[in-house]
Amino acid sequence: MNFCPKCGASVSLRIPAGDHLPRHVCDSCNEIHYSNPKVVAGVLAVWEDKVLLCRRAIEPRYGLWTLPAGFMENNETTGDAAQRETREEACARVELEQMYTLVNVTHISQIHILYKARLLDLDFHSGPESLEVELFEEADIPWEQIAFRSVGVTLRHFFADRREGHYQFRVVDLPPPEAGSR
Amino acid sequence: MNFCPKCGASVSLRIPAGDHLPRHVCDSCNEIHYSNPKVVAGVLAVWEDKVLLCRRAIEPRYGLWTLPAGFMENNETTGDAAQRETREEACARVELEQMYTLVNVTHISQIHILYKARLLDLDFHSGPESLEVELFEEADIPWEQIAFRSVGVTLRHFFADRREGHYQFRVVDLPPPEAGSR
Repeated sequence: MNFCPKCGASVSLRIPAGDHLPRHVCDSCNEIHYSNPKVVAGVLAVWEDKVLLCRRAIEPRYGLWTLPAGFMENNETTGDAAQRETREEACARVELEQMYTLVNVTHISQIHILYKARLLDLDFHSGPESLEVELFEEADIPWEQIAFRSVGVTLRHFFADRREGHYQFRVVDLPPPEAGSR
Repeated sequence: MNFCPKCGASVSLRIPAGDHLPRHVCDSCNEIHYSNPKVVAGVLAVWEDKVLLCRRAIEPRYGLWTLPAGFMENNETTGDAAQRETREEACARVELEQMYTLVNVTHISQIHILYKARLLDLDFHSGPESLEVELFEEADIPWEQIAFRSVGVTLRHFFADRREGHYQFRVVDLPPPEAGSR
């Protein structure tokens, strides 16, 4: 941020009185502009013994596989967002069952929220942000081609929980990635 | 938003190509500026049969009672944020036990996340944003003086769960408030 979105004057990065972190503060109107973590919502959609994955048609991670998910919009719930992203990326309809993982991705200031969901029919296909949309059995999951760690974590918990016969909500804090990894 | 935070030119509210919602788009550099929901994190801290409430020294809801909670900062986890806000508002130390409620407050584009926590000692006192910090038994909760509906919902779930002997994570979608209410 270089300019005040409110009045157009320059901004400086400084700690406002009574605060403890540097913020972008307008040099003219003194408005304080905060920056906060963003929420990504999506689904782990299940059909029989298979789960729905999308191959990304956009950066980052072009060509890799992910769960349908994306940034929450204002004025929607986490559940609304998860279902909307599923429609947009996989043209698929799901019934949400439970919030399943909440993953803190602190190094990029994101929270990823994935719901476990029931895929309602097989009438799905790629939206504009996907190259392919496909159902995978556990044995066929392309583990080396998964786009995001939060997706890998969620899939591993799902297959472990399925063996136990009990699906449990989990909060996961991801450590910063190692150099060169995702 | 009136001006582009990146280049300082004017912005217009319009639907970018490939998008489906109006965004603030820069008339000069074409940068798209998104606005997303914000996350508030806090704790329901328990000591014996009592819970910790703070009376607000700031607007909104000056003078009303709340759970210690506030906006998440970049690069922290939901749990970090909940503990930091508890230190700042109640000068209290807690051990987080479980994420307990996630409340979608869509009409103000916020998600409120409250953890159930164990208060570690009685050495707490008001921070600069609180008038008082106090432990309340269920019978003494000032139900008519609770600052936010997400706090009331969380407290009611807690006392109900305590009677059942089982504490359960819940996702709650708040409807828009009725005129004149909170």
